[in-house]
Amino acid sequence: MVNIELTPEMQHGECRKYMLSIHDTLDIISGKWKIEIIASLSFGKKRFLQLQREVNGIGAKMLSKELRELEQNGLVRRTVQESRPVTVEYEITDYGQTLQPIILEMAKWGATHRKKIMSS
Amino acid sequence: MVNIELTPEMQHGECRKYMLSIHDTLDIISGKWKIEIIASLSFGKKRFLQLQREVNGIGAKMLSKELRELEQNGLVRRTVQESRPVTVEYEITDYGQTLQPIILEMAKWGATHRKKIMSS
Repeated sequence: MVNIELTPEMQHGECRKYMLSIHDTLDIISGKWKIEIIASLSFGKKRFLQLQREVNGIGAKMLSKELRELEQNGLVRRTVQESRPVTVEYEITDYGQTLQPIILEMAKWGATHRKKIMSS
Repeated sequence: MVNIELTPEMQHGECRKYMLSIHDTLDIISGKWKIEIIASLSFGKKRFLQLQREVNGIGAKMLSKELRELEQNGLVRRTVQESRPVTVEYEITDYGQTLQPIILEMAKWGATHRKKIMSS
Protein backbone atom coordinates (compact mmCIF):
# COMPACT_ATOMS: atom_id res chain seq x y z
CA MET A 1 0.00 0.00 0.00
CA VAL A 2 3.05 2.27 0.17
CA ASN A 3 2.76 4.42 -2.92
CA ILE A 4 5.99 6.28 -2.34
CA GLU A 5 9.32 5.61 -3.91
CA LEU A 6 11.45 3.83 -1.36
CA THR A 7 15.20 3.86 -1.75
CA PRO A 8 16.61 0.46 -2.83
CA GLU A 9 17.81 -0.36 0.67
CA MET A 10 14.31 0.17 2.06
CA GLN A 11 12.59 -2.10 -0.45
CA HIS A 12 11.85 -5.82 -0.10
CA GLY A 13 9.38 -5.30 2.69
CA GLU A 14 11.96 -3.84 5.04
CA CYS A 15 9.15 -2.42 7.05
CA ARG A 16 10.96 -2.89 10.33
CA LYS A 17 14.06 -1.02 9.22
CA TYR A 18 11.89 1.77 7.82
CA MET A 19 10.04 2.10 11.13
CA LEU A 20 13.32 2.11 13.05
CA SER A 21 14.75 4.91 10.91
CA ILE A 22 11.66 7.02 11.52
CA HIS A 23 11.86 6.27 15.23
CA ASP A 24 15.52 7.38 15.28
CA THR A 25 14.65 10.66 13.58
CA LEU A 26 11.77 11.35 15.93
CA ASP A 27 14.07 10.70 18.88
CA ILE A 28 16.17 13.66 17.76
CA ILE A 29 13.49 16.10 16.60
CA SER A 30 10.46 15.12 18.68
CA GLY A 31 8.31 17.73 20.32
CA LYS A 32 6.84 20.77 18.66
CA TRP A 33 9.76 23.10 19.06
CA LYS A 34 12.98 21.66 17.68
CA ILE A 35 11.82 21.72 14.08
CA GLU A 36 10.56 25.28 14.43
CA ILE A 37 13.84 26.41 16.02
CA ILE A 38 15.86 24.88 13.19
CA ALA A 39 13.50 26.35 10.61
CA SER A 40 13.98 29.78 12.14
CA LEU A 41 17.78 29.41 12.23
CA SER A 42 17.81 28.35 8.59
CA PHE A 43 17.12 32.01 7.78
CA GLY A 44 20.32 33.05 9.56
CA LYS A 45 22.02 33.10 12.98
CA LYS A 46 20.02 34.59 15.81
CA ARG A 47 20.27 35.71 19.40
CA PHE A 48 18.13 34.08 22.09
CA LEU A 49 15.47 36.77 22.24
CA GLN A 50 15.22 36.97 18.46
CA LEU A 51 14.63 33.24 18.39
CA GLN A 52 12.03 33.43 21.11
CA ARG A 53 10.17 36.08 19.13
CA GLU A 54 10.21 33.99 15.97
CA VAL A 55 9.27 30.64 17.47
CA ASN A 56 5.77 31.69 18.36
CA GLY A 57 4.61 30.59 21.79
CA ILE A 58 7.80 29.10 23.23
CA GLY A 59 8.86 30.05 26.76
CA ALA A 60 12.41 31.01 27.70
CA LYS A 61 13.00 27.92 29.81
CA MET A 62 11.77 25.58 27.07
CA LEU A 63 13.78 27.39 24.38
CA SER A 64 16.90 27.10 26.50
CA LYS A 65 16.33 23.36 27.03
CA GLU A 66 15.61 22.71 23.35
CA LEU A 67 18.69 24.67 22.23
CA ARG A 68 20.88 22.67 24.62
CA GLU A 69 19.57 19.39 23.23
CA LEU A 70 20.01 20.57 19.64
CA GLU A 71 23.58 21.60 20.51
CA GLN A 72 24.29 18.22 22.12
CA ASN A 73 23.14 16.49 18.95
CA GLY A 74 25.35 18.69 16.79
CA LEU A 75 22.46 20.37 14.99
CA VAL A 76 22.94 23.88 16.40
CA ARG A 77 26.10 25.81 17.32
CA ARG A 78 26.23 28.37 20.15
CA THR A 79 28.87 31.08 19.88
CA VAL A 80 29.81 33.72 22.41
CA GLN A 81 31.11 37.03 21.06
CA GLU A 82 33.49 38.83 23.42
CA SER A 83 31.63 42.09 23.00
CA ARG A 84 30.26 44.22 25.83
CA PRO A 85 27.77 43.10 26.75
CA VAL A 86 28.62 39.55 25.70
CA THR A 87 26.56 38.43 22.68
CA VAL A 88 25.41 34.83 22.46
CA GLU A 89 24.35 33.65 19.04
CA TYR A 90 22.87 30.44 17.72
CA GLU A 91 23.31 29.09 14.24
CA ILE A 92 22.46 25.94 12.38
CA THR A 93 25.36 23.52 11.73
CA ASP A 94 26.02 21.68 8.47
CA TYR A 95 24.51 18.63 10.10
CA GLY A 96 21.45 20.63 11.13
CA GLN A 97 21.11 21.67 7.49
CA THR A 98 20.57 18.01 6.55
CA LEU A 99 17.15 18.27 8.24
CA GLN A 100 16.01 20.80 5.62
CA PRO A 101 14.27 18.29 3.32
CA ILE A 102 12.04 17.17 6.22
CA ILE A 103 11.28 20.78 7.18
CA LEU A 104 10.55 21.77 3.60
CA GLU A 105 8.08 18.91 3.19
CA MET A 106 6.41 20.00 6.45
CA ALA A 107 6.13 23.57 5.17
CA LYS A 108 4.58 22.38 1.91
CA TRP A 109 2.13 20.12 3.72
CA GLY A 110 1.13 22.85 6.18
CA ALA A 111 0.47 25.33 3.37
CA THR A 112 -1.74 22.84 1.52
CA HIS A 113 -3.50 21.84 4.73
CA ARG A 114 -4.33 25.47 5.52
CA LYS A 115 -5.82 25.94 2.05
CA LYS A 116 -7.88 22.78 2.52
CA ILE A 117 -9.20 23.91 5.91
CA MET A 118 -9.96 27.41 4.66
CA SER A 119 -11.93 26.17 1.66
CA SER A 120 -14.00 23.62 3.58
CA MET B 1 21.25 31.00 4.50
CA VAL B 2 18.44 28.72 3.39
CA ASN B 3 20.11 26.44 0.86
CA ILE B 4 16.98 24.57 -0.06
CA GLU B 5 14.72 25.11 -2.98
CA LEU B 6 11.66 26.96 -1.79
CA THR B 7 8.50 26.90 -3.85
CA PRO B 8 7.79 30.23 -5.60
CA GLU B 9 5.13 31.19 -3.12
CA MET B 10 7.56 30.75 -0.24
CA GLN B 11 10.31 32.93 -1.75
CA HIS B 12 10.82 36.65 -1.27
CA GLY B 13 11.72 36.27 2.37
CA GLU B 14 8.34 34.89 3.33
CA CYS B 15 9.90 33.60 6.49
CA ARG B 16 6.78 34.18 8.56
CA LYS B 17 4.53 32.24 6.22
CA TYR B 18 7.08 29.43 6.07
CA MET B 19 7.18 29.24 9.88
CA LEU B 20 3.38 29.28 10.08
CA SER B 21 3.08 26.39 7.64
CA ILE B 22 5.52 24.32 9.68
CA HIS B 23 3.63 25.21 12.84
CA ASP B 24 0.35 24.07 11.25
CA THR B 25 1.87 20.73 10.25
CA LEU B 26 3.34 20.15 13.70
CA ASP B 27 -0.05 20.89 15.23
CA ILE B 28 -1.42 17.87 13.39
CA ILE B 29 1.48 15.43 13.68
CA SER B 30 3.22 16.50 16.87
CA GLY B 31 4.35 14.00 19.41
CA LYS B 32 6.36 10.88 18.77
CA TRP B 33 3.59 8.54 17.83
CA LYS B 34 1.38 9.90 15.08
CA ILE B 35 4.07 9.73 12.41
CA GLU B 36 4.98 6.20 13.44
CA ILE B 37 1.33 5.09 13.39
CA ILE B 38 0.86 6.50 9.89
CA ALA B 39 4.14 4.96 8.74
CA SER B 40 2.96 1.59 10.02
CA LEU B 41 -0.44 1.93 8.33
CA SER B 42 1.22 2.85 5.05
CA PHE B 43 2.17 -0.84 4.80
CA GLY B 44 -1.50 -1.86 4.95
CA LYS B 45 -4.57 -1.77 7.17
CA LYS B 46 -4.12 -3.15 10.67
CA ARG B 47 -6.01 -4.13 13.76
CA PHE B 48 -5.34 -2.38 17.08
CA LEU B 49 -3.08 -5.03 18.54
CA GLN B 50 -1.12 -5.37 15.32
CA LEU B 51 -0.52 -1.64 15.38
CA GLN B 52 0.52 -1.72 19.01
CA ARG B 53 3.07 -4.41 18.22
CA GLU B 54 4.52 -2.43 15.33
CA VAL B 55 4.67 0.97 16.95
CA ASN B 56 7.37 0.00 19.39
CA GLY B 57 6.83 1.24 22.93
CA ILE B 58 3.35 2.73 22.67
CA GLY B 59 0.77 1.90 25.35
CA ALA B 60 -2.82 0.94 24.56
CA LYS B 61 -4.29 4.10 26.06
CA MET B 62 -1.92 6.35 24.12
CA LEU B 63 -2.47 4.43 20.88
CA SER B 64 -6.22 4.76 21.31
CA LYS B 65 -5.92 8.52 21.89
CA GLU B 66 -3.57 9.04 18.94
CA LEU B 67 -5.81 7.02 16.60
CA ARG B 68 -8.83 9.07 17.64
CA GLU B 69 -7.01 12.32 16.88
CA LEU B 70 -5.75 10.99 13.55
CA GLU B 71 -9.32 9.98 12.72
CA GLN B 72 -10.68 13.41 13.69
CA ASN B 73 -8.17 15.03 11.33
CA GLY B 74 -9.16 12.73 8.49
CA LEU B 75 -5.79 11.00 8.28
CA VAL B 76 -6.90 7.54 9.44
CA ARG B 77 -10.14 5.63 8.89
CA ARG B 78 -11.59 3.17 11.42
CA THR B 79 -13.81 0.43 10.07
CA VAL B 80 -15.85 -2.12 11.98
CA GLN B 81 -16.42 -5.50 10.32
CA GLU B 82 -19.64 -7.22 11.37
CA SER B 83 -17.83 -10.48 11.98
CA ARG B 84 -17.97 -12.49 15.21
CA PRO B 85 -16.12 -11.29 17.14
CA VAL B 86 -16.36 -7.81 15.67
CA THR B 87 -13.14 -6.79 13.90
CA VAL B 88 -11.97 -3.19 14.08
CA GLU B 89 -9.44 -2.12 11.50
CA TYR B 90 -7.50 1.05 10.90
CA GLU B 91 -6.29 2.26 7.55
CA ILE B 92 -4.64 5.35 6.17
CA THR B 93 -6.89 7.71 4.18
CA ASP B 94 -5.97 9.44 0.92
CA TYR B 95 -5.34 12.56 2.94
CA GLY B 96 -3.11 10.62 5.33
CA GLN B 97 -1.15 9.46 2.30
CA THR B 98 -0.21 13.07 1.57
CA LEU B 99 2.04 12.91 4.66
CA GLN B 100 4.24 10.31 2.95
CA PRO B 101 6.87 12.75 1.63
CA ILE B 102 7.52 13.99 5.18
CA ILE B 103 7.72 10.43 6.51
CA LEU B 104 10.01 9.30 3.70
CA GLU B 105 12.43 12.17 4.39
CA MET B 106 12.40 11.22 8.07
CA ALA B 107 13.19 7.60 7.20
CA LYS B 108 16.09 8.68 4.99
CA TRP B 109 17.45 11.03 7.64
CA GLY B 110 17.18 8.40 10.37
CA ALA B 111 19.03 5.83 8.27
CA THR B 112 21.86 8.28 7.55
CA HIS B 113 21.96 9.41 11.17
CA ARG B 114 22.30 5.83 12.39
CA LYS B 115 25.23 5.23 10.02
CA LYS B 116 26.87 8.42 11.27
CA ILE B 117 26.45 7.44 14.92
CA MET B 118 27.69 3.90 14.30
CA SER B 119 30.82 5.06 12.49
CA SER B 120 31.81 7.71 15.04
